[in-house]
Amino acid sequence: MHPARALSYARAHRGKFVTELKSFLHFPSVSSQPERSGDIRKCADWLAQHLKGAGLDRVRIIPTAGNPIVYASWLRAPGRPTLLIYGHYDVLPGEPLSEWHTPPFTPTLKNDNLHARGASDDKGQLFSHVKALESYLKTTRSLPVNVKCIFEGEEEIGSPHLTSFIARNKRALRADAALISDTRMLAPDRPAISYAQRGGLRAELAVKGPPHDLHSGNFGGAVHNPLQALCEMIARLHDPHGRVAIPGFYDDVRRWDGQERAFMERTGPTDEQILQDAKVERGWGESGFNLYERTTIRPALTVNGMAGGHQGPGAKSIIPAQAIAKLSFRLVPDQDPRKVARLFREHIKRITPPAVRSSVRMFSAIEPALVDRNHPAVRAAALAYQRGFGASPVFLRSGGSIPVVNTFQKILGIPAVLMGFGLPEDHIHSPNENFHLPNFYNAIATSIWYLAMAVKLRGVQRVDERTELTLPRARVITR
Amino acid sequence: MHPARALSYARAHRGKFVTELKSFLHFPSVSSQPERSGDIRKCADWLAQHLKGAGLDRVRIIPTAGNPIVYASWLRAPGRPTLLIYGHYDVLPGEPLSEWHTPPFTPTLKNDNLHARGASDDKGQLFSHVKALESYLKTTRSLPVNVKCIFEGEEEIGSPHLTSFIARNKRALRADAALISDTRMLAPDRPAISYAQRGGLRAELAVKGPPHDLHSGNFGGAVHNPLQALCEMIARLHDPHGRVAIPGFYDDVRRWDGQERAFMERTGPTDEQILQDAKVERGWGESGFNLYERTTIRPALTVNGMAGGHQGPGAKSIIPAQAIAKLSFRLVPDQDPRKVARLFREHIKRITPPAVRSSVRMFSAIEPALVDRNHPAVRAAALAYQRGFGASPVFLRSGGSIPVVNTFQKILGIPAVLMGFGLPEDHIHSPNENFHLPNFYNAIATSIWYLAMAVKLRGVQRVDERTELTLPRARVITR
Repeated sequence: MHPARALSYARAHRGKFVTELKSFLHFPSVSSQPERSGDIRKCADWLAQHLKGAGLDRVRIIPTAGNPIVYASWLRAPGRPTLLIYGHYDVLPGEPLSEWHTPPFTPTLKNDNLHARGASDDKGQLFSHVKALESYLKTTRSLPVNVKCIFEGEEEIGSPHLTSFIARNKRALRADAALISDTRMLAPDRPAISYAQRGGLRAELAVKGPPHDLHSGNFGGAVHNPLQALCEMIARLHDPHGRVAIPGFYDDVRRWDGQERAFMERTGPTDEQILQDAKVERGWGESGFNLYERTTIRPALTVNGMAGGHQGPGAKSIIPAQAIAKLSFRLVPDQDPRKVARLFREHIKRITPPAVRSSVRMFSAIEPALVDRNHPAVRAAALAYQRGFGASPVFLRSGGSIPVVNTFQKILGIPAVLMGFGLPEDHIHSPNENFHLPNFYNAIATSIWYLAMAVKLRGVQRVDERTELTLPRARVITR
Repeated sequence: MHPARALSYARAHRGKFVTELKSFLHFPSVSSQPERSGDIRKCADWLAQHLKGAGLDRVRIIPTAGNPIVYASWLRAPGRPTLLIYGHYDVLPGEPLSEWHTPPFTPTLKNDNLHARGASDDKGQLFSHVKALESYLKTTRSLPVNVKCIFEGEEEIGSPHLTSFIARNKRALRADAALISDTRMLAPDRPAISYAQRGGLRAELAVKGPPHDLHSGNFGGAVHNPLQALCEMIARLHDPHGRVAIPGFYDDVRRWDGQERAFMERTGPTDEQILQDAKVERGWGESGFNLYERTTIRPALTVNGMAGGHQGPGAKSIIPAQAIAKLSFRLVPDQDPRKVARLFREHIKRITPPAVRSSVRMFSAIEPALVDRNHPAVRAAALAYQRGFGASPVFLRSGGSIPVVNTFQKILGIPAVLMGFGLPEDHIHSPNENFHLPNFYNAIATSIWYLAMAVKLRGVQRVDERTELTLPRARVITR
């Protein structure tokens, strides 16, 4: 099936697509803020209705113990391959609001960039595939291959309920490959396929001292300060060479051979490019590795936030009663998040000063993942990029963690094709996040081409129409 | 003049006094929050009206570049000594509000304790003297000695405008001794006179990295984290023995001889008492000194608050763009706040990692102060305590910093009698601050006795009725 008609539909409807993406971005579907659960639900409803409108069959809103999963499928191509398209409709908080030039949930077009929280991560990227599907279904009334979509609402909090959903629906979710767009290219004319994801693990470290704040004049120098103790403990999480100082932390880190490192050197960004993306003058971290390696094949530990004592304007002479830090690990093959959690807890116990008490909560364990660059589904993606963006993609490792990549590999036994449409300057996870619209249009074309090329995928998996999802409480969306 | 009539008036009007103190405590006169400046002004107005009503002459509200000073005097005893009574009507913020059992600015009586922000520090203590003056003026229509009151509204932010006011009005403020109640006793039956105050110096330390928050997956391990850097810098402000690690910091710290340390050992609280007051199990700090010494004759550096990155609920995978810490020094003789500020700035410059930028703001320099325990004005206070509380006071060093003590000594050349009426369990500077009412009543009696005893003070200073305050814009309060 030649994608000509779908491509011309997509070109003709760019204005409509942008308007629809704006509607999608209007929902403050923030998964890390419990008070946003109503907005999450409304956003899932909107997306489900939209998928139905695009022409997909079997649209379902599947409740979980957390936020719902939106599912849709089109399985009318028996004997042909099946693609599982994954994305997430949840976003990070907009805070700090004062640093946005336009409000995070009022999508605003500036030049060719659409500004809004989630514009690039991941609503805009996810929507590129939805629009590709629509372009086929509204023109040829069919797709070149079978498609199953799962769009989840908890990626930004570590996908706590997705793995069990996939495990429960192993048969129903069978596919030949998964397609995920939640990563970035190097520049608008330099597409990229990610073939490695770091794993992750989050920790909250609390230090407590006196039962209530003390006057620092009366007690300063005689009673230990939880905030000072927390700083001293955090200072002992790295050594002077930028390495994580937790004993045993590097034991299972895989050492890559010269060939792989040479490949990375050829394909990956230079130190200068990474510094330019971050807008900082000099790098930091583990010696013996360049910046690209430090963010991909080497693990990291980051303090994401910290709070204690008086934070308002002015001064307050206190020894605070407690202090807290939010930390996150990025892990690499062959580190096991469970083992890292144990090592961290042991280290914290060891370095907690005797005059204070510490406690650790750990969550969102994500295993690192690798994808075979030579898998036919990945090679097809490279060809699709050439058509959609007019350029061959580079193969990159990504420093982030998409929890589902590992899950797809381990539970469904399929590779995840990580086709990135974001740009380094999209400001994801920061104020003024935006999506470059030319990338949106090229992404839709690339997805249209990929669907056409996927017809030739080997290892075709027979779709059994009788296998249904385990969704006792799911809402069926009919127009 | 025997104080019998004043004492019986005070006893008879306890209920009225408590009601009035509640009105005084209703004002959220928080000096560190600019949005409270209206409440500061209303509180100053109320206090001035109240002083007028108590029978004082010449009540003035004196504007400064910051919060106004409330002045009142009664100078109708020519040839007799003059007392300068100092207090502050500003308070610390009520935050964190959630930890108060009753709202901080809704004064609430529980058993014998009046709960409100400022109840003990310093509205309640200041008010004890006001009520003593009223008790004389409403009965004998005169005071045993001349009195000048200055009640300022900026003590909790380091009295930035008081010194220049006193310097400008050196002649008009002439007195034989200053009387200050802004310290504590050891227990309701163990009064205390403070004869030493630590000095102070505040600092805000900011560390900046990338111009905006970065995704910690994409950049974690390759870009330095201002929050981690700040923790590592704070960790380098103390050595492992609890000493401040700023080179040169201890150079000017006075070494006290065995005699003074033996006196302190006899009169001061034990380690056990200090730990019990703080409600912590074990002490911390500089080895070679007991806890009382660590909080009085040894300097200290405290992190009062810190903020950076994501602090809300849930997680946010970022390398924050910046982090900030609020710190305060407590200084002892013969440390000079200016020199300490210079040493701190130099040290911060030295320990700032090259991949981030730091900046330091310093303010509220207060010099440490000592009062001669054998000065007649101090000895008279000991006698007054015996009458008012039925017990002789101990002589204590205080760990806090009352900026004006040093100012009175240096500019006016008079000793400050630090007659404390607070209790260790008053929770000053923390949630649930309260004032023990039996202490309030005994404090009024003690003040009445002190005014009577001050008649005999040597070194009487002639009051010149023609010397007026420099207050071009002051509002004169008439009933």
